[in-house]
Amino acid sequence: MASPWTLDRFQVFLGTFVHSKTREELEYLHDAAVAVDKQGQIVGIKAGCGSVAAAKKQLLEGLGLKEDEVDVCSCGEGQFFFPGFIDTHVHAPQYPNVGIFGKSTLLDWLQKYTFPLEASLRDLDKARRVYGACVRRTLAHGTTTAAYFATIDVAATKLLADLCLALGQRALIGRVCMDAPAINPEYYRDESPEASLRATRETVDYVRRIDDGRGIVSPILTPRFAPSCSSELMTGLASMQREHDLSVQTHISELVDDVKLATSLFPHSGSYAKIYDDHGLLTARTILAHAVRLTDGEATLVAARQAKVAHCPCSNGCLTSGKARVRWLWDCGIDVGLGTDMSGGFSPSMLEAARQAALASRYVAMDLAPGGEACERSKLGVEEVLYLATRGGAEVVGLADRLGRFEVGMQWDAQLVSLHLVPRDDDDDEPAGSSDAGNVDVFGWETWEDIMAKWLYNGDDRNTNKVWVRGRLVHARSR
Amino acid sequence: MASPWTLDRFQVFLGTFVHSKTREELEYLHDAAVAVDKQGQIVGIKAGCGSVAAAKKQLLEGLGLKEDEVDVCSCGEGQFFFPGFIDTHVHAPQYPNVGIFGKSTLLDWLQKYTFPLEASLRDLDKARRVYGACVRRTLAHGTTTAAYFATIDVAATKLLADLCLALGQRALIGRVCMDAPAINPEYYRDESPEASLRATRETVDYVRRIDDGRGIVSPILTPRFAPSCSSELMTGLASMQREHDLSVQTHISELVDDVKLATSLFPHSGSYAKIYDDHGLLTARTILAHAVRLTDGEATLVAARQAKVAHCPCSNGCLTSGKARVRWLWDCGIDVGLGTDMSGGFSPSMLEAARQAALASRYVAMDLAPGGEACERSKLGVEEVLYLATRGGAEVVGLADRLGRFEVGMQWDAQLVSLHLVPRDDDDDEPAGSSDAGNVDVFGWETWEDIMAKWLYNGDDRNTNKVWVRGRLVHARSR
Repeated sequence: MASPWTLDRFQVFLGTFVHSKTREELEYLHDAAVAVDKQGQIVGIKAGCGSVAAAKKQLLEGLGLKEDEVDVCSCGEGQFFFPGFIDTHVHAPQYPNVGIFGKSTLLDWLQKYTFPLEASLRDLDKARRVYGACVRRTLAHGTTTAAYFATIDVAATKLLADLCLALGQRALIGRVCMDAPAINPEYYRDESPEASLRATRETVDYVRRIDDGRGIVSPILTPRFAPSCSSELMTGLASMQREHDLSVQTHISELVDDVKLATSLFPHSGSYAKIYDDHGLLTARTILAHAVRLTDGEATLVAARQAKVAHCPCSNGCLTSGKARVRWLWDCGIDVGLGTDMSGGFSPSMLEAARQAALASRYVAMDLAPGGEACERSKLGVEEVLYLATRGGAEVVGLADRLGRFEVGMQWDAQLVSLHLVPRDDDDDEPAGSSDAGNVDVFGWETWEDIMAKWLYNGDDRNTNKVWVRGRLVHARSR
Repeated sequence: MASPWTLDRFQVFLGTFVHSKTREELEYLHDAAVAVDKQGQIVGIKAGCGSVAAAKKQLLEGLGLKEDEVDVCSCGEGQFFFPGFIDTHVHAPQYPNVGIFGKSTLLDWLQKYTFPLEASLRDLDKARRVYGACVRRTLAHGTTTAAYFATIDVAATKLLADLCLALGQRALIGRVCMDAPAINPEYYRDESPEASLRATRETVDYVRRIDDGRGIVSPILTPRFAPSCSSELMTGLASMQREHDLSVQTHISELVDDVKLATSLFPHSGSYAKIYDDHGLLTARTILAHAVRLTDGEATLVAARQAKVAHCPCSNGCLTSGKARVRWLWDCGIDVGLGTDMSGGFSPSMLEAARQAALASRYVAMDLAPGGEACERSKLGVEEVLYLATRGGAEVVGLADRLGRFEVGMQWDAQLVSLHLVPRDDDDDEPAGSSDAGNVDVFGWETWEDIMAKWLYNGDDRNTNKVWVRGRLVHARSR
């Protein structure tokens, strides 16, 4: 039986394609044609042929395909294809709590809001409801790949992997490891380092088995954060990482109290980053969420190990954690992606995360001499935050060879974006909100750069009309 | 002929009503009934009667109304009534530019993006298209009252007033006054103080005439900001203000360069606030937008004059202007409302402005000792930012006796908010985005406080199902 991940036919996508060429530059391919094979891989791209019809013709001829052998998807006026978003840091079980954080900061937020909810998902009916809503919602926002923290529960974590596979979202699935008593409540922690490692291994094996080499779901080792983990546990996870070449995700340096707690629990390491490094967990496959307060020395160490950073501006704002300096991280040679960090972050939307990354960078700039070079440089532009949400994210989750841009050899993980065109003649009979076209009003005189800015700042899931993962249509708006 | 602003029948609204009781407290009236007369005024409220049916019965009996004499609007599960939003600072002509600001700050943003667009609206066809889209869009977001800056053009400003009246949005309409050469380009400024005053008087008269005492549209004097205005102009506007008891709106103390420019142009005043005060424009009817960098002395002066502040967190972030300290303004005894400040701000949504006010306050907190009292106090809670968006705004625009809460004697300027209830049984056939119910997922175990937080952080215009101004239904989502 053919896997549902192998398609019946080739597909050809026609129209405008926008993606990050570099951090600073979006590339616009107009009147272009992109061919995708039955395994969801881009096998041909034609642009600059004078018309979309010519591009299509040349593309099909070059591939030796006939018109009736392919399915065609064209984008119309006000539409463009964009790479799917990559959420490099998100807690699936916390989805029901988005927006609920009061005036808390990280450590009290964990105790008051987060651990009780996570623990409650050992009820698999509840887990199914929460995870189902989370995966559907993030897919609807154009998130084609997510690096998920689940909970400590093995069965619920397996269920999350099942749901991602069934609903078609590419995902890294992490059973959360947390065995230390310092911060983890008695009702929600692993019994011992051994139990934690055993449960992790079971989850890793399961996720690999159900994925069956398709590259949709994959396991990721997930020590919650240093204060949650014993040395034995972290050392054991590092062994597992080396043995199976696994990805790793954890948190680092979120707010002042968090740094103090971590370094007080591991006094010999001397710094937060060094704790992970001392335990063998600072690797080229490691995703460090937040990195708000890294020192110069820590940044040098992170860069040397080629570990990655998941920047979470929504969460850093909501929980008053601080201002992560993305430009500085880049200057240090560290790859950076974006995370929604639900529910420390308030939104399941990566477009919102990108928007907040732009705003957060302006708060970084406000701390610097107005108009000075450092101030100006620290601001992130539209192109840069969209890079973070796609190509930057692909680097962070270790899939830059497959995801994040439109090139031959890459996977077709993409979204069709559609914006509202304001009628030429003011028509009193068309009230706003009567159509489901969203909040981005295009008047017709805008440049493409303007249009991308408008989408970034006022777009939402209504503008994400269709979403594909590995060539498979996994979400379509009903109107 | 009956005015369209007088209704044929009384209306009764049934269900849950939420509004600000104080800055810190939202009041929840469940199973309640609210009666609204033909002039859109709330004439009766019943709650705590045991059931909504009992509340309705007692309400009608108390008012001597029969069931068949009233129109009834009930809210269902996951729905509640909330006061309409009051946008205390918004530039209607800049609506097409939302999201388009690059890395600019105020003074270059004005020259590059803003003045050219504003000037172009002397083309009345263009103005009609832009203003129509702006008013419809803000109504769809639940903005029942807006304090608009228009442009210097008299005809286009009249058109904005016409559109607000026709579409049913309560609005303060300000023709922008700007005659000084320092910052205003030659292609876009008033010819002289006299010409500016004459054009203003014409607009004031027009707006009053078309409103005809209904209180829907009213004029507001609008010196753009001190660097845009001559002394003669400001003095003339102050005379007009006293003569006709008019509202005034302007900008103050947005970013460092702006303060420098203003105080250098008016060296005798010594401070930005003193410039307005020296010209007689700092009154109890004056709305000052931004107030990011007021000194203690200026705040004392503003409080003494009972002038109000329109806090514009989106704009202050986008344009890297700085962090306005709302708690401090309140502590100084200054009334504060919220403004979208399109297109310095990126969004037409007051819910977005409220959300960004909460986040901006956390960036203020980050500058203070973590965990200290000042740090904790500076954070604004859900209740406080929703207060700013409604009742606070009513104070700022001088309509606190009529708007901002549900009480007998107040106008029915309201919105029906509707949230998405996640099905009890996970249903694989209901993908997110298939309904138009928006992004707020209610699982059923949340408290009402949780629900308001979820709405604040993930709500959008899809959750604003219906909007009324003065009892008249002015917006309804088609599904």
